[in-house]
Amino acid sequence: MQIAIVLFDRFTALDAVGPYETLGRLPGAQTVFVAERTGPVRTETGALAITADRTLAETPAPDIVVVPGGPGQTPQMENEPLLDWLRAADASSTWTTSVCTGSLLLAAAGLLEGRRATSHWLALDHLRRYGAEPTGERVVTDGKYVTAAGVSSGIDMGLTLLGRIAGDEHAQAVQLLTEYDPQPPYDAGSPQKAPAHLVEEFRSKSRFSLT
Amino acid sequence: MQIAIVLFDRFTALDAVGPYETLGRLPGAQTVFVAERTGPVRTETGALAITADRTLAETPAPDIVVVPGGPGQTPQMENEPLLDWLRAADASSTWTTSVCTGSLLLAAAGLLEGRRATSHWLALDHLRRYGAEPTGERVVTDGKYVTAAGVSSGIDMGLTLLGRIAGDEHAQAVQLLTEYDPQPPYDAGSPQKAPAHLVEEFRSKSRFSLT
Repeated sequence: MQIAIVLFDRFTALDAVGPYETLGRLPGAQTVFVAERTGPVRTETGALAITADRTLAETPAPDIVVVPGGPGQTPQMENEPLLDWLRAADASSTWTTSVCTGSLLLAAAGLLEGRRATSHWLALDHLRRYGAEPTGERVVTDGKYVTAAGVSSGIDMGLTLLGRIAGDEHAQAVQLLTEYDPQPPYDAGSPQKAPAHLVEEFRSKSRFSLT
Repeated sequence: MQIAIVLFDRFTALDAVGPYETLGRLPGAQTVFVAERTGPVRTETGALAITADRTLAETPAPDIVVVPGGPGQTPQMENEPLLDWLRAADASSTWTTSVCTGSLLLAAAGLLEGRRATSHWLALDHLRRYGAEPTGERVVTDGKYVTAAGVSSGIDMGLTLLGRIAGDEHAQAVQLLTEYDPQPPYDAGSPQKAPAHLVEEFRSKSRFSLT
């Protein structure tokens, strides 16, 4: 089984690494980082580069597609070669997944029409433009499409899908080995829980502002 | 302020990326991935490579040192150039930190003697060999030394230290932007919570076995 994690300029690292570290431990699976060109692909901070080991063209039919998000997602919404690859890969995939604003790329490729899906909380409403039905859940499964909320939620998505494919016990083993027993020092991880003025501040300056 | 995240062959990606994605959002900070040589450094699965942008020698005095763990930590325990760099960097650092078995490298460098510290649950007892006092906490702060438990705990460590340096509100903002509102599908993230037979299985085959 092949898992392809898609990289593009200015992606967010944890979006990609959460599923890599969990779902990537699927027995017998081969994970490959793919991009339009091979070589290092930088995150939005510029401080981190992950190597794309294969081109999209060299990876035409992965079993599982993982699309991260990040500030670099916006220009990719008009990148037809990438959207074409997503459509073609999805045609034969067993699972098509995303983390954060990666769901907007799946949506722009026309893959989430009429489906329940999620995204980063600041981008959630934009799913509607593409005919998807946004939900406030952290991980949403609709048929073979599994979308996760912002950044860190890819860990929960990866474990969820791992359990679905390899069984609960294997997913629990991976949770134990990655010691995923979260104890955040604050309870501010969602717009419902964070201080209201922080939520408003981000909404007002977001590239996803609807105004 | 400079944050240096140390890479070595067969490190675990999430150990490094958790702090990068949280602590790395410290206002005005520059994060740099460092290794003995520049270029791509592969994780233990071989499927992921992060680029080291600077050598250790080029990064002699970071303000914050972050040392990840992973299966590749074992051979580094006898890598004197790395241990020498850790000692020298620690001599001028404001904070010296680790995730997972990265704490064993700090300990081997003699930096945790007489200090409370943590590590991956399978490696925890080994801290004693180097005069450190292992604790079962997820994030342990003793003076300027901040150590985190296994793999995913680097996210909690990063947010904790971010709050300490930049204030609670900034850390909450980063938690909100990374949507760190964990909802693991299982409750198996620690040896106290996971099915006992899984814990035993890992203990019996661990490279950290004390037998």
